[in-house]
Amino acid sequence: MSGQNSDQLHRTTLAIYTSIMEQFNPGLQRLAALGSNYIQAFQALALTSEAYFNALSKMGEQAMQSMSSRLLGDVLVQISDSQRRITNELEGVFRWFHSEVLREMDDNVRLDKEYILNSRRRYEIEVRNQASTLERQMRRGVPQDGSEYVHFLRECQREALKEEERRYRFLAEKHSGFTQSIAYLMNKTGGGLQNRAEGWKDLVNHTRESRPRTPSRFSILKNSIVHTTTITITIQRNDIV
Amino acid sequence: MSGQNSDQLHRTTLAIYTSIMEQFNPGLQRLAALGSNYIQAFQALALTSEAYFNALSKMGEQAMQSMSSRLLGDVLVQISDSQRRITNELEGVFRWFHSEVLREMDDNVRLDKEYILNSRRRYEIEVRNQASTLERQMRRGVPQDGSEYVHFLRECQREALKEEERRYRFLAEKHSGFTQSIAYLMNKTGGGLQNRAEGWKDLVNHTRESRPRTPSRFSILKNSIVHTTTITITIQRNDIV
Repeated sequence: MSGQNSDQLHRTTLAIYTSIMEQFNPGLQRLAALGSNYIQAFQALALTSEAYFNALSKMGEQAMQSMSSRLLGDVLVQISDSQRRITNELEGVFRWFHSEVLREMDDNVRLDKEYILNSRRRYEIEVRNQASTLERQMRRGVPQDGSEYVHFLRECQREALKEEERRYRFLAEKHSGFTQSIAYLMNKTGGGLQNRAEGWKDLVNHTRESRPRTPSRFSILKNSIVHTTTITITIQRNDIV
Repeated sequence: MSGQNSDQLHRTTLAIYTSIMEQFNPGLQRLAALGSNYIQAFQALALTSEAYFNALSKMGEQAMQSMSSRLLGDVLVQISDSQRRITNELEGVFRWFHSEVLREMDDNVRLDKEYILNSRRRYEIEVRNQASTLERQMRRGVPQDGSEYVHFLRECQREALKEEERRYRFLAEKHSGFTQSIAYLMNKTGGGLQNRAEGWKDLVNHTRESRPRTPSRFSILKNSIVHTTTITITIQRNDIV
């Protein structure tokens, strides 16, 4: 009987169960809690984004009512709509993440604690039973090379390794799915968004070009203030600064 | 003199200044405050995302140390790295949004309050001066058709409209820039991310295929628990449920 070998096998199998119980599951529990924070933070972001682009859209509607900036107003409303659509799509991704990843992680942690503990207990009992049987047979003089016992230990270890692997596969599968849905959203949205953003830029530039002496940046007001002395000078300077 | 026409012109010009002072600037101020919330919410999201994917990466490192899941561990670390890179890139977009959009909106609101009030006051004074001059000349019998005065009012209105348009253009330009930088990030990242995510999926499936009887979902544990009675049955059932 390869005693040392079977001892090593047994210790390694126990270490795998211990690793699932003391490393993987607490890690998964921590991950589920962090994931819950992550989703809450995304929901808060979605709310602030909604509030921001609603306000921007309202300013766009004001501009559409104005004599000067109808086209710019339309651009502002379109930009706001576009950002709101992106947020809605992302909300879908995070809803999936919540139901398909976090909730399952939570369920698994809850169910797995007892399951793995029981699996390990049953393994230890069975090992003791098998070892006693082997010992009894050897005492009775039944010829034993222990190979059956080693085979049993190897099978148990193979199963413990599978349990461990299955848990890491779950994590890898779910998170590559999450990344994939983000990539899908990026690819679905990116091209069209780029085209629209370039169209908006052209429209914005068009409003500038149609009044060639109008300065391009609102921020040059800072400088123009210094130059204004009378209303007529203001009018001229505003146009050329 | 086209009195009605000049009155209309004057009232409309005043309404444009009023609209900037009472609609645009308060709207911009509100937008800057909402933008500040938006950025803070993004920063909070970035922190929770960092914490989540750091924890996932640590689980990946644990898996890399295991006998069963080295490849899966590598996938988990890669997914985490990839998500952290996306968050870093988005942080760059929001930093730009903060410095180039929000800070400028804040500055503009602050500087514009006094600037527009003064512009309007100067306009009103100049209108009174021009109207008095016109009246004096008419009393003295100097021939006047008022066309010069109307021309002056039209010029002032054109300038007021430009002021208004410049402000909406600033908003449209900055926000189309924001959308463009998001689109750029999506297009730069989306394709490669899709490929990597598909690669991870293939690797994950490979670990499943190389052990054909291993169930695909960790969540089937829920069912397997019901079936386990002895260690030998557990071993068999775990493999087929």
